[in-house]
Amino acid sequence: MTFASDNWAGASTRVMEALGNASAGDAPAYGGDAFTARAKALLADTFEHEVAAFFVATGSAANALCLSAFSRPAGVVFGAMDAHIARDEAAAPFLLAPGTTFHAVEGPDGRIGPEELSEALCYYPPGVVHHGQATAVSLTNVNEFGQCYTPDETAAVADVAKRRGLRVHLDGARFSNALAFTGATPADLTWRAGVDAVSLGLTKTGGWCAEVAVFFDPAVAEDVAYRHKQAAQLFSKNRFAAAQVIALLEDGHALTLAAHANAMGHRLAEAVAAAPDAALVLPTQSNEVFAWLSPAAARRLEAAGYPVRTWLPHTRRLPPPPDPAWTMARFVASFRTREEDVDRFAATLAAPAAAPA
Amino acid sequence: MTFASDNWAGASTRVMEALGNASAGDAPAYGGDAFTARAKALLADTFEHEVAAFFVATGSAANALCLSAFSRPAGVVFGAMDAHIARDEAAAPFLLAPGTTFHAVEGPDGRIGPEELSEALCYYPPGVVHHGQATAVSLTNVNEFGQCYTPDETAAVADVAKRRGLRVHLDGARFSNALAFTGATPADLTWRAGVDAVSLGLTKTGGWCAEVAVFFDPAVAEDVAYRHKQAAQLFSKNRFAAAQVIALLEDGHALTLAAHANAMGHRLAEAVAAAPDAALVLPTQSNEVFAWLSPAAARRLEAAGYPVRTWLPHTRRLPPPPDPAWTMARFVASFRTREEDVDRFAATLAAPAAAPA
Amino acid sequence: MTFASDNWAGASTRVMEALGNASAGDAPAYGGDAFTARAKALLADTFEHEVAAFFVATGSAANALCLSAFSRPAGVVFGAMDAHIARDEAAAPFLLAPGTTFHAVEGPDGRIGPEELSEALCYYPPGVVHHGQATAVSLTNVNEFGQCYTPDETAAVADVAKRRGLRVHLDGARFSNALAFTGATPADLTWRAGVDAVSLGLTKTGGWCAEVAVFFDPAVAEDVAYRHKQAAQLFSKNRFAAAQVIALLEDGHALTLAAHANAMGHRLAEAVAAAPDAALVLPTQSNEVFAWLSPAAARRLEAAGYPVRTWLPHTRRLPPPPDPAWTMARFVASFRTREEDVDRFAATLAAPAAAPA
Amino acid sequence: MTFASDNWAGASTRVMEALGNASAGDAPAYGGDAFTARAKALLADTFEHEVAAFFVATGSAANALCLSAFSRPAGVVFGAMDAHIARDEAAAPFLLAPGTTFHAVEGPDGRIGPEELSEALCYYPPGVVHHGQATAVSLTNVNEFGQCYTPDETAAVADVAKRRGLRVHLDGARFSNALAFTGATPADLTWRAGVDAVSLGLTKTGGWCAEVAVFFDPAVAEDVAYRHKQAAQLFSKNRFAAAQVIALLEDGHALTLAAHANAMGHRLAEAVAAAPDAALVLPTQSNEVFAWLSPAAARRLEAAGYPVRTWLPHTRRLPPPPDPAWTMARFVASFRTREEDVDRFAATLAAPAAAPA
Repeated sequence: MTFASDNWAGASTRVMEALGNASAGDAPAYGGDAFTARAKALLADTFEHEVAAFFVATGSAANALCLSAFSRPAGVVFGAMDAHIARDEAAAPFLLAPGTTFHAVEGPDGRIGPEELSEALCYYPPGVVHHGQATAVSLTNVNEFGQCYTPDETAAVADVAKRRGLRVHLDGARFSNALAFTGATPADLTWRAGVDAVSLGLTKTGGWCAEVAVFFDPAVAEDVAYRHKQAAQLFSKNRFAAAQVIALLEDGHALTLAAHANAMGHRLAEAVAAAPDAALVLPTQSNEVFAWLSPAAARRLEAAGYPVRTWLPHTRRLPPPPDPAWTMARFVASFRTREEDVDRFAATLAAPAAAPA
Repeated sequence: MTFASDNWAGASTRVMEALGNASAGDAPAYGGDAFTARAKALLADTFEHEVAAFFVATGSAANALCLSAFSRPAGVVFGAMDAHIARDEAAAPFLLAPGTTFHAVEGPDGRIGPEELSEALCYYPPGVVHHGQATAVSLTNVNEFGQCYTPDETAAVADVAKRRGLRVHLDGARFSNALAFTGATPADLTWRAGVDAVSLGLTKTGGWCAEVAVFFDPAVAEDVAYRHKQAAQLFSKNRFAAAQVIALLEDGHALTLAAHANAMGHRLAEAVAAAPDAALVLPTQSNEVFAWLSPAAARRLEAAGYPVRTWLPHTRRLPPPPDPAWTMARFVASFRTREEDVDRFAATLAAPAAAPA
Repeated sequence: MTFASDNWAGASTRVMEALGNASAGDAPAYGGDAFTARAKALLADTFEHEVAAFFVATGSAANALCLSAFSRPAGVVFGAMDAHIARDEAAAPFLLAPGTTFHAVEGPDGRIGPEELSEALCYYPPGVVHHGQATAVSLTNVNEFGQCYTPDETAAVADVAKRRGLRVHLDGARFSNALAFTGATPADLTWRAGVDAVSLGLTKTGGWCAEVAVFFDPAVAEDVAYRHKQAAQLFSKNRFAAAQVIALLEDGHALTLAAHANAMGHRLAEAVAAAPDAALVLPTQSNEVFAWLSPAAARRLEAAGYPVRTWLPHTRRLPPPPDPAWTMARFVASFRTREEDVDRFAATLAAPAAAPA
Repeated sequence: MTFASDNWAGASTRVMEALGNASAGDAPAYGGDAFTARAKALLADTFEHEVAAFFVATGSAANALCLSAFSRPAGVVFGAMDAHIARDEAAAPFLLAPGTTFHAVEGPDGRIGPEELSEALCYYPPGVVHHGQATAVSLTNVNEFGQCYTPDETAAVADVAKRRGLRVHLDGARFSNALAFTGATPADLTWRAGVDAVSLGLTKTGGWCAEVAVFFDPAVAEDVAYRHKQAAQLFSKNRFAAAQVIALLEDGHALTLAAHANAMGHRLAEAVAAAPDAALVLPTQSNEVFAWLSPAAARRLEAAGYPVRTWLPHTRRLPPPPDPAWTMARFVASFRTREEDVDRFAATLAAPAAAPA
């Protein structure tokens, strides 16, 4: 257990059983099967809203599909300074929504600040072609620094967007973790707060390939179906993707897994906070822990087999490190993390540095 | 068992076991894991050649990745009249290789005719910018009418392409079936015949999501890795895709499954040939059977639960139907097809038509 | 005077005077000037319809702008076998409307056949994502073989398109020549016959850079303005483009120039018809003459300084040459062609072949 | 004379004469003519280097062509915070180089800071696909705040780029003004300082449509010719574009015009500096003057017919206004500006504010 990322874990036992069960018998291809229908019904139940849902291979694909559905000529999408769609997906959303660009918006703790969004929109007066047209806002919940938006915080961003006629997208790669932390319902964190589409990520939660682009306005579905196919994301044997989603949505399985991962995240955070030469960057709200590490602390972890990658934020608003030589690192718990895994990590981090070489 | 397509089948038992085994333990994400390394080594063994391999969600994605890797400004890709890349993928390869277009080439039995390719290239004299620049040829083996290219037939097309400096792509959605029919080795049907990249499809063969873009020139890998990510096709938990490929390549499992499917295809063909008001369009070479059906025959099958979709070829070179009222339909056997499934189909097709309504 | 193309001519005297006059004084950039307003008003007058008009650098740009405005995800545009948009523009419309592809439709004399269009649409049943969605039809008037569509012929194509909900685009690179031949009004040949947008080409007619994308539904203008800018086609000093359009639309100047070019085209046709070893491919309707030339005839012309380029049609429906060794060539008259220019050409073509080498 | 922009001026007398002369006689289309050859030779002379040159309709097109020529999969282009390519061209370069994105780099006075560029490159470690691959740097000279890069300043940026294997692009929409200010030769400000391609803008200088994409590595020309055509930027009657470039390059005409515009810019700057409630944002180096205006000053100018548009910089490094209520505006002189035009502006700006309404 390296805490490198929650996508280093396999899939949950229930998901694997569901995959096994899904393999039996003939079933129509390309999502015409009963598993897909059942998964879509569960998604509507989960969100308490009619939905159009498209199963895809990756979170980037879900993001790209949502943003391309909302695209307009010379469109501009707004997101946080470190938005995954802009920084970590090799511009997939901007290949699949050609001619769309990204405008980074500052805010606290890696979030989009509503006032900062308002200011950013001033660069794009309606009808002035030179700068492009403001089209959509994309927020990430859990965000890129492990922080959650509450329903109110989501609505605060969405309200600014809606006043300018923008669509609102939610990158929910760790949406279940946000649900577990905030205690909000899926509806509260999405359409009730003004969100038009969600990239629902269930792979990190405990699937192996369980990502869905969910739209709350089914009228978009007609065209999006063609985008989905043209993005080479329509699985021929979609029942296997649907079966994973079913397993994760039934009986709140995803939420249970996420709550466990969050708890392990908090245990990790305690380990960081307790270490002599490490510190939390922000209070931990999910299964992701961002830490300042002294060079010695980083070396101790690396020596014990924990990969430490230096994190370079784009936002300028994070609290500074206790010491300028300390670097930022990320540690992530998963549904599979055990208390003893965290405790071994904690012991390594806490250990006094060895004698200098 | 409806014979609607081989992607209506689930996954083979060995594949499902492999998926189960792959779930255990932590593993690096994004293809940094041991399963992925093992699958790549097996691909190199299978093709007897150094390869760069990229795991993707769909055959369209593999095709798009291969063609975009070979793309040049205003590039033109040549393929058969009914090439899947041009007719059945909602232009995915042309979204992911922006500015690339397709030129359809006639030939016998849905294949690319080498002479016809030569003539088509005359439309694109080098250096004349108005028409675009000839860039690549893509052939499909098994092709869109269930026919196979032998190594010599492959080389005949590739030779024309190479003389003009074009790259050669093979859409191998049913490549194992082509291997089983021709008895050729993977190397013989690809790089030894002049093929530069293969979309290796193992999903229809018996996986659930087992598609790989295979390049024989590893020098392309550096840029293709970025295309792969930007196409939103880089699985975070790639070990699950790799495990399927391993299961299918080890011990010739894919070949065994494909040989069975082909045998069932031939049994289906016999049923068609024997029916009073149906006929084969072409001699069956793989697991796909193309049949001319009288309206009565189509009704009998539909009534018995076999979906009959009218096939509209783009090529003008297929033999005509025995009767102008007959329409073309396709029936496909899979690794799961049993003799009794075919025999039930045969009985339905052979049954005298009911009294007219 | 080589008859290589009508774009080998310069600009008409009135156009050059208009350019000179347009240079005086300050004027708002990017089309906010009085020349642009005047040109738009003249366009509305000319077409007897409210229009949204965008000035662009090339006919390809006008075509791309029109087709991208009508694009939908995985859209398919239908056009004639030799449509300029598909064969001679290096796929510009398909770069600027990413993910759009082209379906070639046969018909008589290089035109789109309405029945053939109807059949082509069968390949794209609504809602079936695999093949893409039929989006627009584009016809060229004067077409790629110098033939004109009458209002009725235009309507016959447009009617098929409209029944399927497709938009209709007219590539009017030589629109004035079509007006001169048919005697129809601009309204009759466009919106009254079902055309939604026109690429109005006035460069070949007598401008140097006078191309306009004209839309009859001004509601599209809001988004198209962004496409126009993003296509890098919004001139900063647009008054110079507008001044050319004004000069060509006022007092029927373009029509006068086109009528002269057509007359010279007919004189050219007589020369071809009279020659011993040349023949017309089709009856000449405009300023473009397509001729079958014997090798000797081609050599005589080349020797006299007339460039002869072999024309390779994509359509299979043109009448065959009188002799299989004869090749197709094109000769084009312009507003500047004089009778004596044609007569010199006629004398060269009529001259008895030299003794065999 | 409103000083709204230098593209509100017409074209110089010499340019208009050259256009008139270019219209005579037949000439091969698409740049095969003698004017185009002469213009290319003059460009090579001007830059003292072999060049590949492509004539285009707009500066955005030149930028797009240069950047697309240097594009690689998932490429990232670096530029100043307010780079015209990212802020004022509706993302044209990113439509024409699909999948390419922009990374804004801070620096002094709207320039790219070499150290800041170095830091920005740290976000894109080679081989890490998630973030994209650093591909090119684009600097603007004269930059977006009227400031010039000297040869040394250019080289300082280019050196950082070259160490990472990036190509260097220069957006030279006002390149002649930069030459006039720095006194450097075209070679010194481009390839001798590490620049690989220049968008040479001569429209604002005194043409009406005189923009050229100039590459110093002719090996790129083969593919760029196709990009040029596919971008719908290849003029059919290119002689008219070439004739303008010839007129502007011969006898240093462009430099003469730019020197005059710069001198008028400095006179404008003096007017701003002398006004009681206005101030220069930065010392003026070219024909563009950026000013802080009090609300009263802005009203005086507007009342006198000078349009005042509030300028919203993206960079955070410009000196603050003398008073937080003052806003930024831009005034631009052109080759046509006369001393008395500036003096009238100066008198308006200097006039005491009228009694409050």
